Amino acid sequence: MARRSTVSCAVVLASGGLDSTVTAALAIEAGHEVFWLTIDYGQRHAVEVMRARQVAGAMHAAKHTVVTIDLRALGGSALTGELAVPKNRQSEERAQGVPVTYVPARNLIFLSVAAAHAEVEGASLIYFGANVLDYSGYPDCRPEFIRAFEAAVKAGTKRGAEGTAPRVYAPLLDMTKADIIRTGMRLGAPLHLTHSCYDPVGDLACGQCDSCLIRREGFLKAGVEDPTRYAVG
Amino acid sequence: MARRSTVSCAVVLASGGLDSTVTAALAIEAGHEVFWLTIDYGQRHAVEVMRARQVAGAMHAAKHTVVTIDLRALGGSALTGELAVPKNRQSEERAQGVPVTYVPARNLIFLSVAAAHAEVEGASLIYFGANVLDYSGYPDCRPEFIRAFEAAVKAGTKRGAEGTAPRVYAPLLDMTKADIIRTGMRLGAPLHLTHSCYDPVGDLACGQCDSCLIRREGFLKAGVEDPTRYAVG
Repeated sequence: MARRSTVSCAVVLASGGLDSTVTAALAIEAGHEVFWLTIDYGQRHAVEVMRARQVAGAMHAAKHTVVTIDLRALGGSALTGELAVPKNRQSEERAQGVPVTYVPARNLIFLSVAAAHAEVEGASLIYFGANVLDYSGYPDCRPEFIRAFEAAVKAGTKRGAEGTAPRVYAPLLDMTKADIIRTGMRLGAPLHLTHSCYDPVGDLACGQCDSCLIRREGFLKAGVEDPTRYAVG
Repeated sequence: MARRSTVSCAVVLASGGLDSTVTAALAIEAGHEVFWLTIDYGQRHAVEVMRARQVAGAMHAAKHTVVTIDLRALGGSALTGELAVPKNRQSEERAQGVPVTYVPARNLIFLSVAAAHAEVEGASLIYFGANVLDYSGYPDCRPEFIRAFEAAVKAGTKRGAEGTAPRVYAPLLDMTKADIIRTGMRLGAPLHLTHSCYDPVGDLACGQCDSCLIRREGFLKAGVEDPTRYAVG
């Protein structure tokens, strides 16, 4: 399909997870031409990237770009290899402090790559699946970070100098996981293809990491059957 | 050498070029334990990465990390392949607008990776060889960008949440290229190993791209013999 000048373009940071898939569905619903962007950063759960491709395919992505960044070279996170992923933590425990699954400056790096992609493709928006309620422990999901990042893009890119810096839009920011799942169902997003697990066992989700626990609770609260195949039921 | 707690650590973004090498020399002079960080981003002048290794070796780097990011996947710059590198432009021409050698959001991406590295290594400073006088065309070298970037790191990283976000220090910001060369000579930096050319011919610098022209003029004005081997004299 030829690009129509009346359609605004949006870059969607798509990890193959639940949140970014619903975020992409919202971008499509809003009528944007969507540029899917996935970062292969050497994550333990590299199955994410494959799932991102499947999700993008199922949602008829016109363009899906995968950028490789070797964050394993830096270390410092359970998701890039050094530390063990915590299992079976209660919600109170999960709410305390920054977890070891925090990847140093990950969203700063990912959004920076998204800003570059938006600059090249002429996109006016970056859709970002951050969720402040579920992930209060991750500073790079906070609204004040998003605003500060936008200011950096405005000050430090060609598009910013021209007065057309892309904005960052995080439509899930105030939604619960159950809300996100209900929104995905309403929009027909392929939630069965999404992947949330930090520490998958082959094709199966572990069922015990923070991300699996939050996902399971979300489907339960949404009253939607969870399509995920877990190693531990 | 064991790390002494009295020595503050600094990450230096080291490209193998003149500016970042002198920046590293200033970090060493200031007494920091220096973590060298080079980004291999698929640049046309990949010889940069080799030169960065040689420079770091000559300056006795205790730790040199190379992070690979495939920015070719995004395109949009003469330095990552699509467009031709302009040659023999006069200084007036070079001063106009953002050049095609601008890599979208490059310094935003590089500084983000540096912030991650600083977070993992406990560095309190990121040394950054930006130079606003020579490269007025690059928005991501401007002081206002550096301040905005620092605010984003403060808002969006674990170290920021803890009140110890690294600062970005750009000691060359107001120096001319001649000043930078004189400073490098004073500090005994291995300028002969540095590489500035955007479009090298094998081992030789092209001698005609903006970066070569600025380098040549800099050595001339500094009254220092230029150790560079140019393809076109």
